[in-house]
Order: sequence, then C-alpha cells, then structure tokens
Amino acid sequence: MGAARFLRGLSSLLDPRNLTVIVNTGDDETFFGLHVSPDVDTVIYTLAGVVNALPGWGIRGDRFTSLTTLARFYDETWFRLGDQDLATHIFRTDALHRGQTLTAVTAAIARAYGVRATILPMCDAPVRTVVEVAERGSLPFQRYLVHGGGRGRVTGIRFRGARAARPVPAALRALRQATNVIIPPSNPLVSIGPILALPSMRAVLTARRARIAAVSPIIAGAPVKGPLHHMLTGLGHEVSPVGVARLYRNLADLFVIDQRDAALAPRIAALGLRPVVTDTLMTNAAASRRLAATVLSELRQ
Amino acid sequence: MGAARFLRGLSSLLDPRNLTVIVNTGDDETFFGLHVSPDVDTVIYTLAGVVNALPGWGIRGDRFTSLTTLARFYDETWFRLGDQDLATHIFRTDALHRGQTLTAVTAAIARAYGVRATILPMCDAPVRTVVEVAERGSLPFQRYLVHGGGRGRVTGIRFRGARAARPVPAALRALRQATNVIIPPSNPLVSIGPILALPSMRAVLTARRARIAAVSPIIAGAPVKGPLHHMLTGLGHEVSPVGVARLYRNLADLFVIDQRDAALAPRIAALGLRPVVTDTLMTNAAASRRLAATVLSELRQ
Repeated sequence: MGAARFLRGLSSLLDPRNLTVIVNTGDDETFFGLHVSPDVDTVIYTLAGVVNALPGWGIRGDRFTSLTTLARFYDETWFRLGDQDLATHIFRTDALHRGQTLTAVTAAIARAYGVRATILPMCDAPVRTVVEVAERGSLPFQRYLVHGGGRGRVTGIRFRGARAARPVPAALRALRQATNVIIPPSNPLVSIGPILALPSMRAVLTARRARIAAVSPIIAGAPVKGPLHHMLTGLGHEVSPVGVARLYRNLADLFVIDQRDAALAPRIAALGLRPVVTDTLMTNAAASRRLAATVLSELRQ
Repeated sequence: MGAARFLRGLSSLLDPRNLTVIVNTGDDETFFGLHVSPDVDTVIYTLAGVVNALPGWGIRGDRFTSLTTLARFYDETWFRLGDQDLATHIFRTDALHRGQTLTAVTAAIARAYGVRATILPMCDAPVRTVVEVAERGSLPFQRYLVHGGGRGRVTGIRFRGARAARPVPAALRALRQATNVIIPPSNPLVSIGPILALPSMRAVLTARRARIAAVSPIIAGAPVKGPLHHMLTGLGHEVSPVGVARLYRNLADLFVIDQRDAALAPRIAALGLRPVVTDTLMTNAAASRRLAATVLSELRQ
C-alpha cells in the first residue's frame, strides 16, 4: 500500500501530535462475523513497524492457524486473516457491539500498537465500496480485489452508504486546522474516492487554509500496485499521472510525479496543479522518508 | 473432564445414531465478545479425538498466538483459548448473531468435527452458574474455577436464568424415548446440577421409561478432578460417593462406585440406589470403554 509506505516516511519526520491520518473504510468487510478494516489496520501496522512488508498488509511472521480451522465452518476463507491480526478484528467487533464508535475503536487499536499519530476512520457509519465488473455484476470491494484478483472490466464504482454517512468530526476539524494536507500515492478511485464522496468533505477541503499536495500512484505509466490500471481504463480515465491529476483538479495545489514522468509536467501544470518532479518509488524506508520530506518542503514553499 | 472421557468410551460401544449427549451450558461465558461453551466444546473435541488430553480441554497441539495478541487490547486473558479453538467460538458467535439457536450451532460444530452422535446444549436460553464464595461474593463460574483456581469456601451455587429457560425440545424427546440414561462421572453440583435445575427436566426424568445409572465422580474420598471437594464441603454434603448418591436419590436407579469404595455399597443401597462396584478410574481409552460397557450391561440387567 503506497499510502502506508509514504506515511511511514512522513511519520518519521513529524511530531506524531501533528499528524492526523484519515483512512478509507469503504473496503471494510465482515468476515466470520468480524469487522475487518483493512486500510485502517494496514496504516496502524505500518506505523507500528509490525506490518508484513510483502505483500504490504497483515502482521510480519503471522500464522494462519485460526483461519485454517475456520475452513471447517465456512466455505470461503480467501481473505487471509492471521492469528495475531485476528485479535484486532475480535477486539474491534467486540467494542463495536458494546456501542463504541469506529473512531474510538480505531484509536484504541492504534494505542494498543503504540502508534502515537491520530488515526481516524473516514466515518463511523458503514460505507461500502462496490465495484461493477462486466459479466460479474456488483462486487463488494474485497470480493473484487482479493477473491477476484482485481480481474475483469470495471464498469462502475459506487460507495454504498456514502451519501448518508458523515465524516468523523475529528477529521473535519483536522482538515480545517491543518497547515498541510497530503493525498498519498493511493488509488484515487477506491482509496481516496470514498473519502471525497462523503458529504461536506469536498467543501471543507475547498474552504481549507492548508495547501494540498497529491502524490501520483502511477510511475511511468504503471500503477506501482493493484488493479488501478483496470479501474482507470474501465472508467475512461487516462492511465498515467495526468489521468490521476485530472481527478484532483480543483482540489490539490501540488501534484507530485516521478522523475521518469518529468515530460508530463506541462500537462499537469495545464490542469492548474503545480507539478513537483522527484523520485517517488519507495523501495525502502529511506526512500519513503526522502519522498515525504520533498513533499513537505514543496508544500511549505 | 470425567464426563468426556466416559463419553469417549461409551461412543466406541454404540451406533452414534443411538447416542444423544445433553450438555451443561451453565458455565458458558463471553470472552472478547465471543460465546464460549466450554463443556460442549470439550465433549465435541473429545469425541472427535482432537482434545488436549491434559488438561482435558482445548485442542491438542493448539497455540495461543491470538490470545497473546488479545492481551494488547484486554486486561484479562486468563481463559486459555487456543488458535484452533478460537475458530469454534468465532463461528458460534457469528451464527448466534445471525439468529441461529445454540442447538443448531452446536450441531454444526459437531458436524464440522466429524462427530456423529447428537450433541445438545441443555437449553438455548442463557443460563449462568454463579458460585458464591466466602469473602469474594458471587463469581461467574469460569471466574471462580479458572481465574480463581476453584479456591475459597463455597457458600452457595445458583443457576441464573434456569427458571426461565426451557430444555431444548430434542433433549426432552431423547430422554422420553431413551432406553438408558447415564449420568456420567461429573460434578453433580455444577455440571449435572444446571441441567436438573431446568423446568420440567426432573419431571421428564421421573416419568421416563429408561433406567438411570449415575457414575460417582469421587473415588476413595477424592474427586478425580476439580474443586468438587470444596463445593460439597461448603454446601454441607458428605465428600464421598455416598454424598453424591444422596444428590441423585429418587432420580437414579443404579449408582456406580469404584472398587476402592466397595465398603460403601450398603450405604448406597440404603438410599434406594442399586450399587454397582467396578473400576471407575479412566486412566486410558480402554479403561473408559470398559467402564462404559459395565454401566451399559448393568443397565440392561
């Protein structure tokens, strides 16, 4: 997850009291009756330094004993929940059943893992990203991505429940007060899209005093990870940093692209975004930190 | 658990279609929001041949990775739920939340573990055994037994919810139709007691056509396992097979005691129960099978 890697670099540069992360919950899903928040957990595990670097989610060295045993009871166990990871979902489910908000539960999980930055789910109400795939119909996000391997022609993306959901108050407050806002190198359609689809989110971002930088998740024409390519193509977007920049027009001030895409800078500028050209490939912690430092420094200029 | 070991012997002698096990759920407890039915699970794991022989519960070779991680979120993790075992509780909780009865869930768990005998919880409604301990007050059963190590002077035992609970219909049907009923060598106060406390249970047992044999959980003055000694003493019962037989007066026809207690046979007979003297110590599978065969054969005489 590019966002998580970027965040790890960013968090190494900031006092955690000054870092608030607003995380997509559109790909939350219920497995075995347990509420799983994949993006939230990946952010927390990454900032805690326990994430499984490859594939970029779950906990390093985790085993799958419970999951293997759950196959006695369930036909489908394709979502890989490790034994340590499971504790997070058991706790989250228990706390939600006891009436806690997703915001409170997320804060407790971050605290349990020693993460000092503020981690916020985008909203407390359930929003579910649904991907429409040709010949396969509407698929809940994890079924599309993990079960279906992100295959198939995407004909639509919806955020079920988004219109009725409200961003968590702390997220709106953080955005209003922020000095800098960064949209990390994430999938603009299914990772950033659900957040922007929440009522009042765009209005708050437009009225902000902070400048917004977005980092391209595409380098030299290829999304670093995931089925972003299929999604952009299916929905008629250009598969390039320019295609992504166009989605952030009238929202971001700066758009950060990789040096291999330097030739695209004029087209970014033509969209009204200031292009920043740098090395955006986060091959290790130092590279993540360097990229985050560049973005911060450009925001301050 | 003496009952489970006895059952394993018994099940090796009977067509599973002819064996119905009615299991105490008074010591069910919720841990981490998961519904745990310790007695039901021990019976299923034992009949499936996967039980951890020592201490007699849980799954053989199970690890505690999730539980160790749950300690990040919870102050108390004294109830030892293994990673494989956890799958049972996750499934049970999920199915109950989806509106299934404990009876249906129990059947599904038994099936998942290949157990072909009919395993029934005593009731679908929650009944909770509460142990009153001097200077410590009322303790839920697992807190008394597992957390408290069964220590302290027992001044009372209550079955919260029992009066409003109804035995599961299949249990009453099985008891009405049974040729033989066996009360295994269990704690009469907290393992058999909750079942007998359910409305209409005693009436059905009294009106039955089957004969009832009870097996003493006490051999030569010492309960084979558990804090039965403290419970009997605290509640003014004799700590001996006779003390247990007295609890089954007007209920059981036969009372099976160990050969080391042969001298007590006249006192058992004086209570109106036919004493059966045999080797009741189930040190291995063959011994369990031999004891079960003796009980069956005596019931048929």
